[in-house]
Amino acid sequence: MNNSNLDRVAKTLSEVRNKMPLVHCITNYVTINDCANILLSYGASPAMCEAYDEVFDFVKLSSALYVNLGTLNKEQEEAAILASTSAKIHNIPVVLDPVACAAIPKKVQVINRILQVGKIDVIKGNIGEIKFLAGQSSKVKGVDSLDTGEGALECCIALSRKYNCIVAATGKKDFITNGENSAIIENGTKMLTKVTGSGCMVGALCGAACGASEDKFTATVSAILSMNIAGEEAFKIATAPGSFRIKLIDCIYELSEQRLKEGAKITWK
Amino acid sequence: MNNSNLDRVAKTLSEVRNKMPLVHCITNYVTINDCANILLSYGASPAMCEAYDEVFDFVKLSSALYVNLGTLNKEQEEAAILASTSAKIHNIPVVLDPVACAAIPKKVQVINRILQVGKIDVIKGNIGEIKFLAGQSSKVKGVDSLDTGEGALECCIALSRKYNCIVAATGKKDFITNGENSAIIENGTKMLTKVTGSGCMVGALCGAACGASEDKFTATVSAILSMNIAGEEAFKIATAPGSFRIKLIDCIYELSEQRLKEGAKITWK
Amino acid sequence: MNNSNLDRVAKTLSEVRNKMPLVHCITNYVTINDCANILLSYGASPAMCEAYDEVFDFVKLSSALYVNLGTLNKEQEEAAILASTSAKIHNIPVVLDPVACAAIPKKVQVINRILQVGKIDVIKGNIGEIKFLAGQSSKVKGVDSLDTGEGALECCIALSRKYNCIVAATGKKDFITNGENSAIIENGTKMLTKVTGSGCMVGALCGAACGASEDKFTATVSAILSMNIAGEEAFKIATAPGSFRIKLIDCIYELSEQRLKEGAKITWK
Repeated sequence: MNNSNLDRVAKTLSEVRNKMPLVHCITNYVTINDCANILLSYGASPAMCEAYDEVFDFVKLSSALYVNLGTLNKEQEEAAILASTSAKIHNIPVVLDPVACAAIPKKVQVINRILQVGKIDVIKGNIGEIKFLAGQSSKVKGVDSLDTGEGALECCIALSRKYNCIVAATGKKDFITNGENSAIIENGTKMLTKVTGSGCMVGALCGAACGASEDKFTATVSAILSMNIAGEEAFKIATAPGSFRIKLIDCIYELSEQRLKEGAKITWK
Repeated sequence: MNNSNLDRVAKTLSEVRNKMPLVHCITNYVTINDCANILLSYGASPAMCEAYDEVFDFVKLSSALYVNLGTLNKEQEEAAILASTSAKIHNIPVVLDPVACAAIPKKVQVINRILQVGKIDVIKGNIGEIKFLAGQSSKVKGVDSLDTGEGALECCIALSRKYNCIVAATGKKDFITNGENSAIIENGTKMLTKVTGSGCMVGALCGAACGASEDKFTATVSAILSMNIAGEEAFKIATAPGSFRIKLIDCIYELSEQRLKEGAKITWK
Repeated sequence: MNNSNLDRVAKTLSEVRNKMPLVHCITNYVTINDCANILLSYGASPAMCEAYDEVFDFVKLSSALYVNLGTLNKEQEEAAILASTSAKIHNIPVVLDPVACAAIPKKVQVINRILQVGKIDVIKGNIGEIKFLAGQSSKVKGVDSLDTGEGALECCIALSRKYNCIVAATGKKDFITNGENSAIIENGTKMLTKVTGSGCMVGALCGAACGASEDKFTATVSAILSMNIAGEEAFKIATAPGSFRIKLIDCIYELSEQRLKEGAKITWK
């Protein structure tokens, strides 16, 4: 069964490349370019429209919506909420990245408004953010989690049941659950923390995978695994952050199902 | 005559490097950094000011204005219209990139307001956008054109006469016309479509070329040719998108008139 | 005494890496990604929050505030002023980059409001900007200084006394003063001017250094020296702007106290 899980995880990569899903992103300006480029390298098509007047119609044309709460300005905030409404009406999967929600209480208001009028299919945050949303205390520094990951899976499962969505908590280990089935990924490299936007990029990839595949849990596992294995590959070639970041994009582009299957260190629960 | 055309196309490169035109850009945040960096590598000087209070005066100091309609927020939209007014008053060339105009009808309203109160010297879009503006049906996916290019030159000529400006439609082939004379460029590499902002960057280069050279038709041909040949050069060294994008900037910097002349695949009409 | 100065300059690097200061940045979207990435490579932690509702609380958590006046929109402008107020109340060092203040008079109003309600610990601008703020005439082109640097140190000292802060004027030579002690740095490479955001990045590094070290004058010298020596290192490997920019981030990451001490060309006054 675990092998068949892994097969399906690997197969998501081909689904993305075949479908070339249009992923509508409302995201912070710090890493918006990285998100667009990694989506293209992954085989998806990025759309970064955020004008309030345009976003409802644009989401309708998309295969997935990715909302990232890092540094939203007022217009983006309204656009994100409206976009999630459009996604609900048009039955388009929504991936939410609750950046800095543990540091800035106002982020939680935005999440609640999205849950009220729109929907969330996947929440992908760092462990500190997920623990906070699950009602546990967590240690954060700005947008970074200092949390060790203890009890993370339990928090993911609790949050998954609370919000009725897939929850992914990323960190040294990554935890993904749909409330019933869970996966723990132990791939990756510490160098990913030396590059801004690793988290944003993996969120965008989750959007692409969910836009291409029916099984959102497997798709989320696949996107996070892809980022981690691409990171491992990139670090073989480039050991300083500037070069590593460029190679990361290259390695997402060059990733194969074979490489995903051979390299995956996943525990299924 | 064709050789003399090509000589003038190549010579634009030196004109840019000698004049170092200040190119005022109002552009989307996805690729604003790429536009600034490629302008510097081309030999121009970027200015990305978009504050409504400042833009009128800033355009006055510039050699060209580049307006890119991708993801304009409200303040940018007003600033773009005001900037085009300033460009008209101060006789500064305006290059417009009508990003996503075929997907989002509201973009056309902005173009119409720019035509009313300002001016447009060059419209540079993908083939889908140009066909749409020319009143033809076109196939687009978000910001990308899926159009094959059939009938593209006719659309360019029609739009050129409608708006009384130079029109460039980029794609697998690039079509440039001033309504009387036309050029078809068959350089480039498909890898340019795997990098976000290729289109934005070539638009910014058109701004630089038009800011440095009197002959806007030749300048536009030269800018588009430069991007394509730099892309060919970059792809010789870097075959994955992350590295390719970095080498593209390098190759624009290292481009020579000689290389442009030797590599150009232009059909003049 | 000069050797002991240089020792302390070099030691700032370790202070940054040990403390990993959270540097809150309110900065332009052209180079916001570069600022975040170079802060991470330097050993600091970037926070780019600019929402008016969040910025007061966020600054309280930070070790330093970096405000960059390039292309501020209205919300950023208000956020910058509020952030500086928060920095004053919470005794957090503020580094200001007065981008384009010589070209756009309105920038000076923002500086004055920051001085009224907040505070400035370090002003880091190009020579044209610093001369302008010191009341001297200066030659600028958009955001770039065309000034030769003659009389720059005197302008820095005058401005330092006027604003009661550290002043740094960057260019071919860099001038840093606290009004009493001064340093002139003659490191660097011209290639830094071929990359957008060199100035923004060095400003962000000044924020990190001042957030990690008690001695703000030495910290500012150290940050500027670090950028210049990293630039020299990067240029040894990469001689075109695209590659150079990536290597610059790598070289900041790989910088050692030893390299700073061996490479420094500083005149103390």
